[in-house]
Amino acid sequence: MLTAEARSRLVVVLVGARNPQNIGAAARAMQDFGFSDLRVVNEFAPPFEAAQLEAKSAVGASSIMASARLFSGLPEAIADCALVAGTTAIGGRELTREVITLQTAAPQLLEALQHAPGGADEPAARTALLFGSEKTGLTNEQLSYCQLLLTIPLFDPGIEGPGTRHLSMNLGQAVAVCLYELTREGFEQARALPQLHQALATSADRERLTERLLELMKATGYDQRFPANSREHVVRRLAQQLGVTQDEAATWLGLLRHVVRSTQKLQEQEPE
Amino acid sequence: MLTAEARSRLVVVLVGARNPQNIGAAARAMQDFGFSDLRVVNEFAPPFEAAQLEAKSAVGASSIMASARLFSGLPEAIADCALVAGTTAIGGRELTREVITLQTAAPQLLEALQHAPGGADEPAARTALLFGSEKTGLTNEQLSYCQLLLTIPLFDPGIEGPGTRHLSMNLGQAVAVCLYELTREGFEQARALPQLHQALATSADRERLTERLLELMKATGYDQRFPANSREHVVRRLAQQLGVTQDEAATWLGLLRHVVRSTQKLQEQEPE
Repeated sequence: MLTAEARSRLVVVLVGARNPQNIGAAARAMQDFGFSDLRVVNEFAPPFEAAQLEAKSAVGASSIMASARLFSGLPEAIADCALVAGTTAIGGRELTREVITLQTAAPQLLEALQHAPGGADEPAARTALLFGSEKTGLTNEQLSYCQLLLTIPLFDPGIEGPGTRHLSMNLGQAVAVCLYELTREGFEQARALPQLHQALATSADRERLTERLLELMKATGYDQRFPANSREHVVRRLAQQLGVTQDEAATWLGLLRHVVRSTQKLQEQEPE
Repeated sequence: MLTAEARSRLVVVLVGARNPQNIGAAARAMQDFGFSDLRVVNEFAPPFEAAQLEAKSAVGASSIMASARLFSGLPEAIADCALVAGTTAIGGRELTREVITLQTAAPQLLEALQHAPGGADEPAARTALLFGSEKTGLTNEQLSYCQLLLTIPLFDPGIEGPGTRHLSMNLGQAVAVCLYELTREGFEQARALPQLHQALATSADRERLTERLLELMKATGYDQRFPANSREHVVRRLAQQLGVTQDEAATWLGLLRHVVRSTQKLQEQEPE
C-alpha cells in the first residue's frame, strides 16, 4: 500500500531514451499510477524538448512532462537517490551480477519508498528506477550505478519454437508494468514501522567513494598492476558496496582519504 | 503457471482501435508475454492494414500481426470464446454491473485458460480479453457481451489533489499490464533466470577482509588518529559490506593487500 509520500519518493529515470513518444508514454504511465518525478538523461535535448512540446497538447501526462527534468549525465540525475534499481532485459549478456524478477524486487522497492528515513530539515532519500534506451537498454557502465538489478519476466519462444528474438519490451509498456507492480497492492495508507534514524547514503555519496577509491588505486600503483580491476565501472561497482548509511559512507570516505594522504606523504619522503 | 496450450487459448480483442501504432503495440505486448491470437474489430480496415504493413518492418511482433484477424462485428470475433472478459476504465460512468480489479480477475481467467474443456475433435473453448477504442473504451453495448468486467486500478488524483482527469490507460500499456498479470506467476516452461556464475562471498571471506582492513588501518596510522573507528567490531561491520560475490571479495582482498604492501615498502624506504 503506497502513501502519497512514498509515491513522491520514486524517481523514474529514462537513460538515453531517443523517441519523444516513448518519453511521453512513460510520463503517461507515471500519471496513471500516481507517480510524478520523471528525469531524462540525454546528452541531446531534442527528444526531451519534443516530448514536452507534445505533452502540452496531449491528455493526461502534461503536468508530469512539464515538471520533468533533463540531465546530461546519470550521476547528476540520481545524486539524491539512496536505492538505485536498474531494469534490464538480460538478453544474451553473460551475467556477472544477480538479476531478480520485478515481482521479487517490488517488496524491496516498496520498503525503501515507505520507510525512507529523513530528518525534518532534510528531504528523505529517493529511490530511482532506471530504464535504458530503446536500442541498447542500460549499459554495463550505467548498471554499475545500481544496487539492484531487476527484469520483467518475458516469454522466451526459444524454448518452444524456432527462432530467437531480442527479449525486450517497449519502453512505455515496461514503465507501465513496473509501476503497476509497485501499486498492485493498492494506494491506501501504509502501516507505520519504526523509522530508521539514520540517513541513507545517496548516489552522490557513493560517487565520492568511487573517486577516492580510484585515487587510492592510482596513488599506490594498483591501477598499473591490475588495470582490469581499476576500470571506472568496476571500481564504481565496488564503491556501491561501501556505506549503507551516510555515517558509514563518511567513515569509508575518511579512511580512504587517510590512506591516500599517508601514501602521498610517504612518497614525498621517499629518497630519489 | 501457464502452459503453452493455456496461452494459446487466450484471445486479445481490440474493439474499435483506430491508431495502427496502438494495434502494433498490443501485438508486441502479446509477443512479449507469449500470447498469439489477436483479433481486431473494426468496420474500417485501414488501421488494421496499416498495422500489418508497419509490423512487416518492425522488430518483434510481426508474426502476431501477420496472423491477426479483422472482424467487422464483435459477435463474430468472439464466437468461439466461452469466457469473455471486458476491460473498462469505469470513469464517470454509473456502474450497473460489478467490476473487479485485474488482480482479482486474474485467477478466474487463468482457471478458464487452463481447464477449458474440449473434445478430441473439437477445439477447446477460448477466453477473450476485450479492450475498447482509445477514445471511448468499451461501450455499454460491447460490455453486454462480457461475463466478467475488470479494471486496472489507477491512481485517482481526485482523492488527494485538485483536478479530475480521464482515468484510462494507453491501449498498448493496458494490454501489457493485463498480460503481465496473467503471466505473473510464471510460464510453465519458465526460462529460469540465467544462473549467476559466481559464488557468493562467505563469512570466512569477510573475516579475511576484516583482518586486512585492520592491518591497513594500522599500517597507515589510521587507528592512532581515529581509534573509535578502528575498533574490531566497527571494522568488521565495515568489512561486511565488501564483496557480495567471491570475485568481488577477492578484488577487495587484493586491493587491501596491495595497499598495505605499498605502504610498508614506502615506510622501509623512508629515511630514518
